Amino acid sequence: MASLASPSTRAQPRSRWESARIQEVTIEDSFWSPRRATVRTQTIPQQEHHLRTGGQFEALRLGWQPGQPEPHIFWESDVAKWIEAASYCLASEPDPVLAAEVDKAIALLEGAQQPDGYLNVYFTVVKPGERFTDLRDAHELYCAGHLIEAGVAHFEATGKTSLLEVVRRFADLIDREFGPGGSCEGGYDGHQEIELALVRLYRATGERRYLELSRRLLEARGTQPFYFDLEQRRRRTPGYFASHFPQRDEQVQRFREYNQSHRPVLEQDEAVGHSVRAMYMYSAMADIAAEYDDERYAAACERLWESTTQRKLYLTGGIGADPTIEGFAGDYDLPDEHGYAETCAAIGLVFWAQRMANLHQTGHYIDILERALLNGVLSGSSIGGTRYFYDNPLASNGTVHRREWFGVACCPPNLARLISSLETYAYSRGDREAVVNLYVGGSARFDLETSTVTLTQDTEYPREGKVRITVDPDQATDLTVSVRIPAWCRDARLVVDGTPVSVESVLDRGYVRLTRTWQPGAEIELDLAMPPRRTWAHPLVAAAARRVALERGPLVYCLEGVDHLDPVHCLVLPRDAGLDTEPDDLSGLVAITAEGLATTARQETQMLYDDIPHQTSPARLRAIPYFSWANRERTPMTVWMHDGGA
Amino acid sequence: MASLASPSTRAQPRSRWESARIQEVTIEDSFWSPRRATVRTQTIPQQEHHLRTGGQFEALRLGWQPGQPEPHIFWESDVAKWIEAASYCLASEPDPVLAAEVDKAIALLEGAQQPDGYLNVYFTVVKPGERFTDLRDAHELYCAGHLIEAGVAHFEATGKTSLLEVVRRFADLIDREFGPGGSCEGGYDGHQEIELALVRLYRATGERRYLELSRRLLEARGTQPFYFDLEQRRRRTPGYFASHFPQRDEQVQRFREYNQSHRPVLEQDEAVGHSVRAMYMYSAMADIAAEYDDERYAAACERLWESTTQRKLYLTGGIGADPTIEGFAGDYDLPDEHGYAETCAAIGLVFWAQRMANLHQTGHYIDILERALLNGVLSGSSIGGTRYFYDNPLASNGTVHRREWFGVACCPPNLARLISSLETYAYSRGDREAVVNLYVGGSARFDLETSTVTLTQDTEYPREGKVRITVDPDQATDLTVSVRIPAWCRDARLVVDGTPVSVESVLDRGYVRLTRTWQPGAEIELDLAMPPRRTWAHPLVAAAARRVALERGPLVYCLEGVDHLDPVHCLVLPRDAGLDTEPDDLSGLVAITAEGLATTARQETQMLYDDIPHQTSPARLRAIPYFSWANRERTPMTVWMHDGGA
Repeated sequence: MASLASPSTRAQPRSRWESARIQEVTIEDSFWSPRRATVRTQTIPQQEHHLRTGGQFEALRLGWQPGQPEPHIFWESDVAKWIEAASYCLASEPDPVLAAEVDKAIALLEGAQQPDGYLNVYFTVVKPGERFTDLRDAHELYCAGHLIEAGVAHFEATGKTSLLEVVRRFADLIDREFGPGGSCEGGYDGHQEIELALVRLYRATGERRYLELSRRLLEARGTQPFYFDLEQRRRRTPGYFASHFPQRDEQVQRFREYNQSHRPVLEQDEAVGHSVRAMYMYSAMADIAAEYDDERYAAACERLWESTTQRKLYLTGGIGADPTIEGFAGDYDLPDEHGYAETCAAIGLVFWAQRMANLHQTGHYIDILERALLNGVLSGSSIGGTRYFYDNPLASNGTVHRREWFGVACCPPNLARLISSLETYAYSRGDREAVVNLYVGGSARFDLETSTVTLTQDTEYPREGKVRITVDPDQATDLTVSVRIPAWCRDARLVVDGTPVSVESVLDRGYVRLTRTWQPGAEIELDLAMPPRRTWAHPLVAAAARRVALERGPLVYCLEGVDHLDPVHCLVLPRDAGLDTEPDDLSGLVAITAEGLATTARQETQMLYDDIPHQTSPARLRAIPYFSWANRERTPMTVWMHDGGA
Repeated sequence: MASLASPSTRAQPRSRWESARIQEVTIEDSFWSPRRATVRTQTIPQQEHHLRTGGQFEALRLGWQPGQPEPHIFWESDVAKWIEAASYCLASEPDPVLAAEVDKAIALLEGAQQPDGYLNVYFTVVKPGERFTDLRDAHELYCAGHLIEAGVAHFEATGKTSLLEVVRRFADLIDREFGPGGSCEGGYDGHQEIELALVRLYRATGERRYLELSRRLLEARGTQPFYFDLEQRRRRTPGYFASHFPQRDEQVQRFREYNQSHRPVLEQDEAVGHSVRAMYMYSAMADIAAEYDDERYAAACERLWESTTQRKLYLTGGIGADPTIEGFAGDYDLPDEHGYAETCAAIGLVFWAQRMANLHQTGHYIDILERALLNGVLSGSSIGGTRYFYDNPLASNGTVHRREWFGVACCPPNLARLISSLETYAYSRGDREAVVNLYVGGSARFDLETSTVTLTQDTEYPREGKVRITVDPDQATDLTVSVRIPAWCRDARLVVDGTPVSVESVLDRGYVRLTRTWQPGAEIELDLAMPPRRTWAHPLVAAAARRVALERGPLVYCLEGVDHLDPVHCLVLPRDAGLDTEPDDLSGLVAITAEGLATTARQETQMLYDDIPHQTSPARLRAIPYFSWANRERTPMTVWMHDGGA
């Protein structure tokens, strides 16, 4: 930790935004309401079923005996994320049956907790003497982090402290063990997660120790001598996942990068390694930047943001192109069919972007958040809500399909907790500022010192770009209402109380910021033009060479075989082809259509190879929103389509 | 075998060609002589080193003890292919040191042979009670086949019978065990190879039992009840490779296809499964078609040939696009970067094509043979002869490179035995017919009843298309001299004894057939125009969509990053760009050059995604022969390049 000897630790946080709380927001619109109902009525019950029949709940009874299959070292995180998602649902809609199931799960966790606060089935019953000896591989702190997030979410959603008390006892134990003189002094986790969870725990409890523990874990990371080397030497075994990574001993640097422990976090400037770990860590770094008003953390986050979003981001908001490490590849290395783009990584990018937007009060972070959310995250679930993609490729030869569950089931409950807490992403609050980040039908309540202001959105977004926002204070109120203008929009029109307002005149860091004395019943009308548009990638992206994608508003589109007579790889979008739209039942939005071309065989018996150039014939192209692909019969798909005339 | 109850078994073979024998041919030219010298002086010694240090030779001493690492079940095949390659070298050039090493290896094999003729280390020392109980997985007959080929090759090259006697004893044992009343009656091998080897053994010894055993093994294959099911039920264990194929019990049909045992061989009409097994089996089927003059075998071969070469063949002559089974994918499913195209499979295609050409006296089989040989086979070895590709992709992102050896080392010695027996592919003999299949400098001796005719080729092929063939009988001789005219050649000129002859007038099934009374010193001059040319794939080949390849003569070309300032994925070959050639030191042949284009970033800070179309700037393209790629620094490569104007 020598290199971080004099951190800036101003006690007073600087001006920053906070995300709205679930209870302050209601969501009711044609796009999100049915999807959130699907999560509540399909996804969460299906996941409860898997946790019950898969052994996760049962393992918490600590009844494992030698010879039986071992409980999985991630299982607490599955249970925790399910509780977290269910808690968010309970916050937005009472459900006594679900509440009782959550209470039952919490009771199991309580029962599994050891007298000293420790809570982890594997290291209680299978390897009882080995807790905290394999921080790199054994996911104890990762599970603890998810438990803490669940405890906070459950408390905030229901007001009950049952799980919060459990996780506080565990956090207190971790604080002792990782503090001065503790058994893990100088240690940190192999799979980051607890860092951001501890910040949430601090915010929920006001207990500053948790915030400081989070910062301590971050600052120990990547310092020399490397903790993971020290613990391996002490332990004298190669680690829980050694057989998964036979090259680990040779590729030392690569596997330090894998969990972002290759150098101190404040010195990192390229997004590397396992992308979910990266996202959770960068999110915590943004939290620390805000809580400590620490410019060094803000600067590191900004460098990593640029690396992630300017050189390593899929068009869909997916990240992590290298399947062999579930993580980042090199700059511009974004293969489509053989990439990865794990659902959890896109979700992690949403977490990080939310924090970056609040830290900098800047809309372009929300542009990325929305890109990830509506494309690379939503694609992770079937429309029916019970089948999942672990990885989200941008092209398929027709063999790819969603699955009902996974042995490592991190993505399904992660999706559920994000969709069911959408309220907190839609709005932020600042100092006398009400912020609209996402266009979502429904309302948000902002309690100010002397008044309460309710913002109500009425919109069919993302099917169309019209958004009517009613600003309704209970009495005339001085306030800035800030509404995001997405960077993709080239023609945004704004009318306030019937009077057109030039967007440019009030645009500040991606938001129109309307500061005035708002009267009850005031109205903001926003019209975001969203014609279908063509998008090209940087020429260094090999998978997109001489190809073009279609987008409309925040949505990325794709061609799916089932909509075409010709194979999708034969389809060409000419430069001069007009782009139209038509209703699309599958997504409930619109499809983009164009008069395109298809390369075709000249005759049935055409040779496999010959010297006659390809010819083309007319073919109608029909592109659907990327998130909705693979909900019909299995056929090939591509986001990047041939760019005619390129 | 019910469905094959009445095979046509005419004893007299019909008119057909036979391949030349090594001793009848000498090779001396600028292309092949250095490569064959490299095999002799680099590849074979390096492989001997690996067999010595890797344990293959040592294992033959049968000294294995429980607790030691087990000898690999393929090891006899590695030793056998090395002996075979070395024998071919000895046939064309005496080398006492190599001859002594071969004798030493043969002595080891002799020592490992059991009194009853059995020869397999694994089932002698590791699992002595289990021989011939796991035919599907355990590769005993595969190893036996390679031993038999080695025995025949060694005998034909050196006249010594030492190894031939060993393998005859083994073949006799197999004949008993797989014959009526034997322990394996109705059985056949999981990895075909012995079928073609037994035909070679029959031809070398005149012992018809071996030929009949070969046919019996083929005809048992794929009949119901399936032998591999029966043996597994008897054995009550899931098989040696069960853990490699956890899906085998579910994907029953796929894993029957894997080793082509899904239906009787005469009913097969699509090339499926592991492609090396397929090639060795189809080769044997062509042998049986010829030996028994059996039209049913010829017809099955022809159906499989069309499936292989018209729908499943890489431009390079590689086959087997699916890495998960080292085998065939569906029709037109030929991915470039993520394909497979194992070196051994292309070698197997050469074996099969040779037999098909001899069976049908038709040149288009040799066109495929030459395509595979000069592209997908030669690419399997570095120019230095000591580093190998196992799979030969048609594109690379720059991370692919040849390796010095493999745990499963089938490809390196397979390459060595093919290159060192090139003589037998270059010429065939028919009934009063001398056939030139390949343009290779050197000479071939045809012993006729009353005279001897020597054909001498003088050529710089494949650098250029001029071939001068001297036909030199020791006395005036009536003879047909047939010279192949490759299908890729659009302008072939022929001059015989100074007189121009119209190619069309004498062209028959891909050969100019010149029947006359040849006088000593007669001369055939052939000039095959080989301008660089563009080649397109069938539109259903997704990896080649809107792409074009360059070829010249029999060679496929590729773009390698090291020759270009722009990444190869940015390069575009315009339709109207002229194609030139320039000398190429790396291959000793010529490079193809063109004034092309490259998509480039508009500025250093260009966004990852935006709405401005790609632009292009001039870029010089330099394509090199595919076989010579990956001999310089590691950079990306592609065969299929962007087709400008497509």
